[in-house]
Amino acid sequence: MIDEDFVLKIPESLDLARVAPLLCAGVTLYSPLRHWNAGPGTKVAIVGMGGLGHVGVKIAHAMGAQVTVLSRTLSKKDDGLRMGAEDYYATSDPATFEKLAGQFDLVINTVSESVDLTPYVHLLDVDGTLVNVGAPAEPLRVDAQALITGRRGLAGSANGGIPETQEMLEFCAEHGILPETELIAASSINDAYERLLNADVRYRFVIDIKTLA
Amino acid sequence: MIDEDFVLKIPESLDLARVAPLLCAGVTLYSPLRHWNAGPGTKVAIVGMGGLGHVGVKIAHAMGAQVTVLSRTLSKKDDGLRMGAEDYYATSDPATFEKLAGQFDLVINTVSESVDLTPYVHLLDVDGTLVNVGAPAEPLRVDAQALITGRRGLAGSANGGIPETQEMLEFCAEHGILPETELIAASSINDAYERLLNADVRYRFVIDIKTLA
Repeated sequence: MIDEDFVLKIPESLDLARVAPLLCAGVTLYSPLRHWNAGPGTKVAIVGMGGLGHVGVKIAHAMGAQVTVLSRTLSKKDDGLRMGAEDYYATSDPATFEKLAGQFDLVINTVSESVDLTPYVHLLDVDGTLVNVGAPAEPLRVDAQALITGRRGLAGSANGGIPETQEMLEFCAEHGILPETELIAASSINDAYERLLNADVRYRFVIDIKTLA
Repeated sequence: MIDEDFVLKIPESLDLARVAPLLCAGVTLYSPLRHWNAGPGTKVAIVGMGGLGHVGVKIAHAMGAQVTVLSRTLSKKDDGLRMGAEDYYATSDPATFEKLAGQFDLVINTVSESVDLTPYVHLLDVDGTLVNVGAPAEPLRVDAQALITGRRGLAGSANGGIPETQEMLEFCAEHGILPETELIAASSINDAYERLLNADVRYRFVIDIKTLA
């Protein structure tokens, strides 16, 4: 028995094996992109090109926003551009922060590490918002003056509820959006975990539950 | 010669000696209260009952919001209630933060000291915003999880531009709002500065410029 209030309908056009990460990473990015009005005419930066970030690029692009990826290095640049980003910059290069200062309406930080957020706040235009979807254990740090100048905001966002998750699934079906996944057998999870720690996954592992038998 | 773009009209009903702090403290509070829609049905907390905070209480009350003051102690409670606050709590009492958790749509922090903002973020309702108008030199610190839960935000706000300052002056004239001030002669500024450091001012000193002669 499953309470119908907690059932989602998976659109038939979506490959089930690849849908799984949408139910967490997908809605975690969809929700703030919708709430902060990503769309035509808005400039969105996605910080981190991992399991969360790459879905964010696809969804923000499908919403009509102009998307920039900010990743530590340029190693996934081709992927980012293919998925819909117009620009792709390395955060390891200080020139990135100079060049992009004041450019974005919305910056979504998917990195679960505590960094000084001040340089990312400086990327925001007036009234822009930096949304943190990662939850590092250490407190977030940010200069007061960076927020005060331009009335910028720092916000948090979790994943969404059931209605918004359903809406996201339909949006993804309509736009043909699926995460990039690697399907693994249950017996491979130790290997997969090692690879995860080494950031060697493009971009999400999905465990095939039928291999549990 | 003064550029007309930078001239403000002071409504005749407002006492000039008391208008002066409105041009900084007044608009610094008016601007975020307007931007984040303080009004009937909204619950606003003003943190700090000083030169900025007391004007914030008056303006937020005049906008129709339900106003709570959070001050270090209860020493100015009578003033706060007289100026329009419905409640007044001491931040030195940890029970305050328990009692008021999740209550506010908007919290405006007027304190220019770097404190851990996490307890203040926990005072916010879903989608609430903590606005920092002070600019401490040390970075602001806040738990990521506190922002993520309830999609809460931390923002900064400076004072306003000329059109918003004019709007604020007219709003204050309409509602009979003036800061509480103590008019001093230019020769008293050293004394006044000492008293300022000892928080012995209710609530702003105004220097009578004609005493400069």
